[in-house]
Amino acid sequence: MADKVFLVIGAGAGIGGHAAARFARGGYHAVLARRSDQAGLEKLVRGIEEDGGKASGTLLDAAADGTIEELVERVERDIGPISGALYNLGAQIGNRPLGDTPHRTFELGWRLGCFGLFRLAHALTPRMVERGSGAILVTSATAAVRGNAGQHSHAAAMGGRRMLCQTLNAEFGPQGIHVAHVVVDGSVDAPDTLGKLLGDRFEAYKAAKGEDGVIDPRALAETYWHLAHQPRNCWTHEIDVRPFTDVPWWNDNPPAAIDTRSR
Amino acid sequence: MADKVFLVIGAGAGIGGHAAARFARGGYHAVLARRSDQAGLEKLVRGIEEDGGKASGTLLDAAADGTIEELVERVERDIGPISGALYNLGAQIGNRPLGDTPHRTFELGWRLGCFGLFRLAHALTPRMVERGSGAILVTSATAAVRGNAGQHSHAAAMGGRRMLCQTLNAEFGPQGIHVAHVVVDGSVDAPDTLGKLLGDRFEAYKAAKGEDGVIDPRALAETYWHLAHQPRNCWTHEIDVRPFTDVPWWNDNPPAAIDTRSR
Amino acid sequence: MADKVFLVIGAGAGIGGHAAARFARGGYHAVLARRSDQAGLEKLVRGIEEDGGKASGTLLDAAADGTIEELVERVERDIGPISGALYNLGAQIGNRPLGDTPHRTFELGWRLGCFGLFRLAHALTPRMVERGSGAILVTSATAAVRGNAGQHSHAAAMGGRRMLCQTLNAEFGPQGIHVAHVVVDGSVDAPDTLGKLLGDRFEAYKAAKGEDGVIDPRALAETYWHLAHQPRNCWTHEIDVRPFTDVPWWNDNPPAAIDTRSR
Amino acid sequence: MADKVFLVIGAGAGIGGHAAARFARGGYHAVLARRSDQAGLEKLVRGIEEDGGKASGTLLDAAADGTIEELVERVERDIGPISGALYNLGAQIGNRPLGDTPHRTFELGWRLGCFGLFRLAHALTPRMVERGSGAILVTSATAAVRGNAGQHSHAAAMGGRRMLCQTLNAEFGPQGIHVAHVVVDGSVDAPDTLGKLLGDRFEAYKAAKGEDGVIDPRALAETYWHLAHQPRNCWTHEIDVRPFTDVPWWNDNPPAAIDTRSR
Repeated sequence: MADKVFLVIGAGAGIGGHAAARFARGGYHAVLARRSDQAGLEKLVRGIEEDGGKASGTLLDAAADGTIEELVERVERDIGPISGALYNLGAQIGNRPLGDTPHRTFELGWRLGCFGLFRLAHALTPRMVERGSGAILVTSATAAVRGNAGQHSHAAAMGGRRMLCQTLNAEFGPQGIHVAHVVVDGSVDAPDTLGKLLGDRFEAYKAAKGEDGVIDPRALAETYWHLAHQPRNCWTHEIDVRPFTDVPWWNDNPPAAIDTRSR
Repeated sequence: MADKVFLVIGAGAGIGGHAAARFARGGYHAVLARRSDQAGLEKLVRGIEEDGGKASGTLLDAAADGTIEELVERVERDIGPISGALYNLGAQIGNRPLGDTPHRTFELGWRLGCFGLFRLAHALTPRMVERGSGAILVTSATAAVRGNAGQHSHAAAMGGRRMLCQTLNAEFGPQGIHVAHVVVDGSVDAPDTLGKLLGDRFEAYKAAKGEDGVIDPRALAETYWHLAHQPRNCWTHEIDVRPFTDVPWWNDNPPAAIDTRSR
Repeated sequence: MADKVFLVIGAGAGIGGHAAARFARGGYHAVLARRSDQAGLEKLVRGIEEDGGKASGTLLDAAADGTIEELVERVERDIGPISGALYNLGAQIGNRPLGDTPHRTFELGWRLGCFGLFRLAHALTPRMVERGSGAILVTSATAAVRGNAGQHSHAAAMGGRRMLCQTLNAEFGPQGIHVAHVVVDGSVDAPDTLGKLLGDRFEAYKAAKGEDGVIDPRALAETYWHLAHQPRNCWTHEIDVRPFTDVPWWNDNPPAAIDTRSR
Repeated sequence: MADKVFLVIGAGAGIGGHAAARFARGGYHAVLARRSDQAGLEKLVRGIEEDGGKASGTLLDAAADGTIEELVERVERDIGPISGALYNLGAQIGNRPLGDTPHRTFELGWRLGCFGLFRLAHALTPRMVERGSGAILVTSATAAVRGNAGQHSHAAAMGGRRMLCQTLNAEFGPQGIHVAHVVVDGSVDAPDTLGKLLGDRFEAYKAAKGEDGVIDPRALAETYWHLAHQPRNCWTHEIDVRPFTDVPWWNDNPPAAIDTRSR
C-alpha cells in the first residue's frame, strides 16, 4: 500500500498528466483516470515509472453513474489513502450559438463540469475528514468567472463548479481539507484537449503565440504542487494563471486608443 | 390576442406574483406558471383581473421535459407574443452538509436553478430574435456570487445560472433582447418560498427584522418594471437589492472591533 | 426654501445635466456644480427653468480644499435640504503609459475620482443622518472594476471610489442613506466629457456606433431617478449600464472562433 | 555588486521581514526598508546574515516625496539590479466612522496604500523593462475587494491599489514583468503591524485562534517565492490566502441556520 495517493480525474497528456508526474516525483502514488485512449494512458503511467515514480491508470466514464464513486473506493482499498486529488475534467465544446447547443449537450457539460466534482467530493471527503487532512485541486477556466458568447454549456457548468468549490471549502476547510480553484486563463500546451479542438492548426497556433506564449503544463504542475503543500495556516482558495503575453480576461483586447467607456 | 405578454415561471405570492401584477398594470397580459397550488394560482390571477388587468395561470412542472417548451408554444399561439419573461424559480433547500445532499437533490437544484432557464431561453429567444426585441429577467440569489456553507446544491445551480445569463446576454443582447440578472441579497416577504421554509417562525422573523427589514415584493416588482423598460441604449445586466438594514453579502457581520485580517 | 434639493457635482451637458433636469422635473430644486464654462452652466439652469423646474448653478473647483464643503453648507442654508446628491466627476485622461503619467496627474485623478467623494460624504452625511434619509448616487466607470492598459490614474481613482462607496454604504445604509454605485460600462453621449476627449471625431464616433449605440444620458437619468426612489426595503447598491450593442467589459471582443483559454 | 536584489518596502518582523529572509536564502541580496525602528531593522538584517544570506536595511518615509525614488536609484547603483520587489506597506488604522476619519488620515492612507506603489513602479519599471524581466509582488488585503464598515481610508486605498496592479500588469506583463496581487484574507502573526494594533491582546488573540489559526509569515513567504519564480508562460496575477479555520470574506460568519436571503 502507498502512503499517499494523488488521484487525477481527467489525466490527459496536458495538465492532468503533468500534475500526476509532479506528484509522483514528490512521493505520491499517482492514479490517472481518463475517459479513453488506453495506449495514451499507459504511456503516461510508464513515463512516470521510468522516472522512478509510482503510478496506475484506469479508463473512466466520469459521466456515468457510480464510476467515480467506485474508483475512489477501489483506490483507497487497493492502493492507499487519497491525500490529494485533482479534478481536471473540462467541458469545452467550442463556441456554439444557443440554437446549436442541444439540451443533452448542455446537460453533459454540467455532468462533466460540475456534477462530477460533486460526486468526487461526496465520495472522497468522508475519508479525508476522518484523516483530518487532504487537498482537492480543481482546474477551472475563465468561463467560471465570465460567460462569453457561444459558451452556454461550458460557462454554466464552470460557474456552477466555482460556486461548488466555495461551498466545499466552507464546509471542509475547517476540517483540514484544502479546496483550491485554479482559473486557467490562457491556452495550455495540452495535446489531448486544445490539441484535439484545434487539430491541424495546433502547432501553428502555438507558434503564433511565440515563446512562452502557451502555458506549459509542467509549470502549472509546480503551482499545483505548491498549492497542495501550503501549510494549513496559509491556504489559497483561488488563483489565476496565464502566459505573460496573454491579456487577462478582464482587460480589453486590443486596448482602445481612447477609453471611451470609462468616464 | 394580447399585444404583449409577460410570462412568469415561478409565480408564487412573492416576487413572481407581484411582478406579474405590476406588468399587468402596465398593459401586459400576465401568464403565471407555478408548480402547484391551483387555488393559490387562481387567487393571483383573480387579483390581477380585479385590478383591471389581464392574466392567465397554469400549473407547470418546470423540471419535467418539454413543459416549459410547450408553455411558450401555447402562450405565443393562444395569448400573444411573450415580450417579457421572468425566470423566478428558486432551488433553495436550506443548509445541508454535503453528506446530507443526495445526488438527486443536487441534480434537481440544477434542473430548476439552471437548466430550466436554458430551456426557457431555447424556446423563447428564436421568437424574440425574430421580433428584434424582448426582455428576459432572472431573479437570482446571493448564492450566484458566493457559495456559503451548506449551500452545495443551491450555489452550484445559481452560479451556473449567473454565467448562463452572461452567455445569453452576449449572444442575444446585440439582437435586441435584454437579459438582466437580479441578485436578491436579502429576505423577501414571500409566503410561498421563505414563508414555507420558515413555517411558524415566518411572522416572528419578519417582526425581528423591523420596519422595512424585509424586501417587499411590490418594491422589487417596480425595479423589474424599470429594468424591462430601459431603452436599449442603456441596459442593465446585473443589479443587486436588499433592505437598508441588511448587511450586504460582501461585508462582515458583525464588523470586527479591529479589522485583523486587513493589513 | 426648497423642500428638497438634488445636488450634482460634475454637471456638464451629459449625465450630470440630464440627471439634474430629471430630478427637477420630479420636484427637486437642482443645484448644478461644475468646474468651468459659466455659459454652459447657465444654459443648463435656464433649460430646467424653462421646463418649469427649479435650479441653481455654481462653478466649483472640486479639487481645491474646502470647496465642496462650502457648497454643501451654502446650499443647505440658502436653498434647502440636500436629500439627493450625484457625484459625477470623472478623472479620465485617456490612455497613457506609466512613463507618461506624472505623479501630479495620478494625484489629481485621485483628488477628483476618490477624495472628492470622501469630502462630499464627510460634509453631507451628518445632515442626512440627522434627517434619517438621503440618497448619494455615484457615477462610476468600468475602470472601477478592472484596470485596463494605460488607465493607471483613472483605474486607481475609480477602484478607490468603488470601495469607498461600499464603506459608505456599510456605515450609512442602516441610518437610512442610500448609496448607489453605477458602473457606466459604455460610451455616453456627453459633449462635455467624451465629446471633448474625442473632439472632431465625436460625431463620427457616435455615427459608427449606430442607432442606440451610445448611452443617452436621458435614459440613464431615469435609472438614477429609479434608484434614488427605491423604498428602503429594496435598495440597490451596484448596477451596470451599457448600450445593447456594446460588449460588456467581461466578455472577449471579438469572441475567439475557438475559446482556447477555457478548458 | 549583487547579481539580483529583492527590495522590500515595508519590512517589519512579519510578512516583509520573512519574505526578505526567504529571498536571501534563495540567493538574492535583500534590501529591507521600513519607516522606523532602526534596532528592529538591524535585527532583521543580522538575522539574514547569520543565516548565511546577504541583506541591507534602510529607514524610509515612504509617504515623503522622492524617498522611494531615491532608494531605487541608490540600490541599483550601489548594490545590484532589483529583480524582485515587494510592496508591503499597509494603511490599516482600525475601524473608524467617517466622522472620525479626518481628511489627512484618508489622504495618508492613499499615500501609503496606493500612491507609494505607483511611485515604486514609476521608478522601477524602466529598469526592469530594459532588462526584460522582474517581479513586483504586492501584499494586499481583503479591503481591496470589499469595503467593510469603518474602513473608509483603508478600503479606498486598497481598492485603488488593486486596480493599479491590474493596469501595471496590463502594461508591463507583456514586457516580462510579473505583477502579482496577493489578497491576505486572514490575520498574520506580524508583531509590527497586527501586534501593535492589538497591543496587549495580541497573544490572547492568537491563542484564541488556535493552532494554525493565524498566518505564519514564513508560509506566506514561500508562496511569494513561488509566485516570483513561476515561468513566464504561467504567471499568477491574483491569489488569496487565509488560515484553514478562517471564514473567507465572501462567506457568512456564522452561517445562518436557514439561508433566508438566497432564493
